[in-house]
Amino acid sequence: MNAGIVRASLNICAIFAFYLAAAMLIPSAVDFAMNNPDWKVFGLSALLIGTISALVAVASRGSQPTNSTRFTFLLVNMLWLTFALVGSVPFMESTMQMSFADAFFESMSGITTTGATVLTGLDTMPPGLLLWRSILQWVGGFGVIALGLFILPFLKVSGSGVFRVESSDRNERPFARFSTYAFNMLLIYVALTLLCAVLYFVAGMSGFDAFNHSMTTVSTGGFSTHDASFGFFQQQSIQWIGIVFMLLGAMPFTTLILIGLKGRFNIFADHQVPVMLAMVTVLALAMAIQVDLAGIVDIQEGFTKAVFTIVSLVTTTGYANTDYIQWGGFAMSLVMLATVVGGCSGSTSGGIKAYRWIIGYKMIRRALDLFIYPNAVKNVRTGMVSVPERIQIVTLLFFTAYFFLIGVGTVALTLAGMDLFGGFSATLTALSNVGPGMTEEIGPAGTFTNLTDGAKWVMAALMLLGRLEIFAVLVMFSPALWRY
Amino acid sequence: MNAGIVRASLNICAIFAFYLAAAMLIPSAVDFAMNNPDWKVFGLSALLIGTISALVAVASRGSQPTNSTRFTFLLVNMLWLTFALVGSVPFMESTMQMSFADAFFESMSGITTTGATVLTGLDTMPPGLLLWRSILQWVGGFGVIALGLFILPFLKVSGSGVFRVESSDRNERPFARFSTYAFNMLLIYVALTLLCAVLYFVAGMSGFDAFNHSMTTVSTGGFSTHDASFGFFQQQSIQWIGIVFMLLGAMPFTTLILIGLKGRFNIFADHQVPVMLAMVTVLALAMAIQVDLAGIVDIQEGFTKAVFTIVSLVTTTGYANTDYIQWGGFAMSLVMLATVVGGCSGSTSGGIKAYRWIIGYKMIRRALDLFIYPNAVKNVRTGMVSVPERIQIVTLLFFTAYFFLIGVGTVALTLAGMDLFGGFSATLTALSNVGPGMTEEIGPAGTFTNLTDGAKWVMAALMLLGRLEIFAVLVMFSPALWRY
Repeated sequence: MNAGIVRASLNICAIFAFYLAAAMLIPSAVDFAMNNPDWKVFGLSALLIGTISALVAVASRGSQPTNSTRFTFLLVNMLWLTFALVGSVPFMESTMQMSFADAFFESMSGITTTGATVLTGLDTMPPGLLLWRSILQWVGGFGVIALGLFILPFLKVSGSGVFRVESSDRNERPFARFSTYAFNMLLIYVALTLLCAVLYFVAGMSGFDAFNHSMTTVSTGGFSTHDASFGFFQQQSIQWIGIVFMLLGAMPFTTLILIGLKGRFNIFADHQVPVMLAMVTVLALAMAIQVDLAGIVDIQEGFTKAVFTIVSLVTTTGYANTDYIQWGGFAMSLVMLATVVGGCSGSTSGGIKAYRWIIGYKMIRRALDLFIYPNAVKNVRTGMVSVPERIQIVTLLFFTAYFFLIGVGTVALTLAGMDLFGGFSATLTALSNVGPGMTEEIGPAGTFTNLTDGAKWVMAALMLLGRLEIFAVLVMFSPALWRY
Repeated sequence: MNAGIVRASLNICAIFAFYLAAAMLIPSAVDFAMNNPDWKVFGLSALLIGTISALVAVASRGSQPTNSTRFTFLLVNMLWLTFALVGSVPFMESTMQMSFADAFFESMSGITTTGATVLTGLDTMPPGLLLWRSILQWVGGFGVIALGLFILPFLKVSGSGVFRVESSDRNERPFARFSTYAFNMLLIYVALTLLCAVLYFVAGMSGFDAFNHSMTTVSTGGFSTHDASFGFFQQQSIQWIGIVFMLLGAMPFTTLILIGLKGRFNIFADHQVPVMLAMVTVLALAMAIQVDLAGIVDIQEGFTKAVFTIVSLVTTTGYANTDYIQWGGFAMSLVMLATVVGGCSGSTSGGIKAYRWIIGYKMIRRALDLFIYPNAVKNVRTGMVSVPERIQIVTLLFFTAYFFLIGVGTVALTLAGMDLFGGFSATLTALSNVGPGMTEEIGPAGTFTNLTDGAKWVMAALMLLGRLEIFAVLVMFSPALWRY
């Protein structure tokens, strides 16, 4: 590994750390206005981290990375770790007095837009801290879009590039006019957030709640300002605004840009969208109907709850408006599926993602044909686009690696004190960046507070693995990256 | 689908059904000798099925299949279904009065060498029925070896052919001298069974127990003649004989033939063997040590139990000599891994199997290198042999399909009334042909009796899917098989 690469990565990380430190002035101002002593914590953290990162940025200036692939892999890992570290500082120093393990868990859960929390008593928590959690997710959400649209396809870790809008929109390709594209992306992201906040407010949320929840909805993060999460809000309208904006957050941003800026409403051009919507519809209807038939919750009440639950999980947001663990085995098996399904690539969502399901399914279909006609040459296509063979293989490797990691994560979490199903469930939710688990303790009505520190570190690592689509993290352990 | 293919398959199935009917005369004779009225049931079943299958065999005589791939796929599926159906008849007609769902479950569990049972009170059950269960597993075990060595590699569903013994043993290849090879296989299988029975008997089992357990050990089936399974036998020597012969049953039979008939003790020529032994060693040691450290069972007592448990699961036998569910989360997470790991290809074991782990691991390692050096062309090799690309892809597809099926199986089982973790656990154990699940109800000290009929049918389907390595069953649903 060339030292220049490390220096160059450090330089960029320091610059981003500086920006994140500057963002701490927002909760500081809010706490100051609300007369909460934590304003000093945020101010001091901003000053401290701002100074350090400015010094590091200056000291590491001028390095030119000599190999862009290695550099990008290293940078992406260091960037997310930097965000998680910097983000954890206010949690430790605040009136909450969180341990490093707790603060890092909360910060990593924020910046990876997972939404698992170790905090309880949110309803009475200082506003600055609540806002800081929302800001971390909002920033993380934007980072993820950039990651999915620009970085992972460049590193050939993700095949999302395949699912870009088709033929006539080819000139909209990310790298053609990068700065315009990135600016449009930010514009849409900000516009969606503001629109969502206004709608939440109009539907009955307080201004503070509306703003926080809009940030964690559009980023499909899932942090709430209430222990009851969306269960706190009784209005149906608020539930449905949440549903719509969670889905928007899980749509490919290329599609959203075309809708928002060009007025092209062809949302099915990217095949991921209809697949995701179909999955959501099937899972939600199956859940609502079976729960009604089983006499657990009648469908009038259960319909909104089921749709909200499934959308919240598939988009990997992780809000809860009901304790669905009480809904029985079948509903919970749908919750398990929804936890791993994931949204669309190029969005803020996590999980396995719709395009991988499309490719995986098509490859199995093709293999069945090939068993019968061994010499048939068949492409795997989606819409007009033929999927390159390398992306086919990387997709299957992703499923395989995901499968391996479920095992590794479960073993590590049980070693850190969890029971088998708790560990399995925590692994799934962390790896998919969803948030709530599937047991009483860590489920929609529970919290991750009582996990051991070891378990919190393991989960933080799994969140990062999930966020960087596994391989970008695993490459760090490959000798090929460091030797040259 | 050509009608000739169906007729030809039917013909072979009828012939095998006739043989299986003839085998019913053995439990009939034993029950007669022991003065148990069930001897009439077995005699009558033999007569009835023998007559019907002879008639079908004669009626369907003379059909020549025109396409060997389609024919073989169809035949393999029909054969296992025929065995399961025929095997279930004595269970229904016997003094046990089992329902069709129960009888079919037990028979499928036998013929696929799974070992999950719906029966309790084994210790006082008629000897003929106990013997029938053992015979089903023993026959199933031999069928699986033939499947793994000859049929699946021919159908390109399995890559086990790659892992055949190397270079100098090339002339031992299955299809070179098929009849000699098949005869040697049977010889070794019978010899192993007899040796195992004698050792069990010498170590203290009754003659009846020794013979039954030797049949279900060498076939890695796991049916026992006692509700307490191997917990019934207090002798350490019996436990260790079981451990050794379960491992032998999970070894590639090509290797065993070379050892037994040629005196070549190069058991590591097939890379699957050291990998399987390494997995067993690591899992068993980790379990024994952690359980000791946690103060659950001290290592003097726990060592044999841990080794037995892990070997029983990895070889997909499914005997239990202790209720390991009481051993805590970490031990159970190792139980989960051991349940899916599987033994070697070309053996009687099920599960994912060692050679797939080798290929999967090597492909991920190679992919990490390729992310850094995108133009590097690297083969996936094992030992001297380079793995053909089609087998690489089929292996990854297997992991992917296995992952899909865990979801499908869990949803189906919860719909049939199980809770989430019960359904997940039952799916894993059925798909890997292991036997016991990971919850109190269906665990090593439990039984599948209280499952709904629906759940039993789903599990039977999963056992078949696992036994035929998923794709051989899925191909039945491909239009390409039926259209031509």
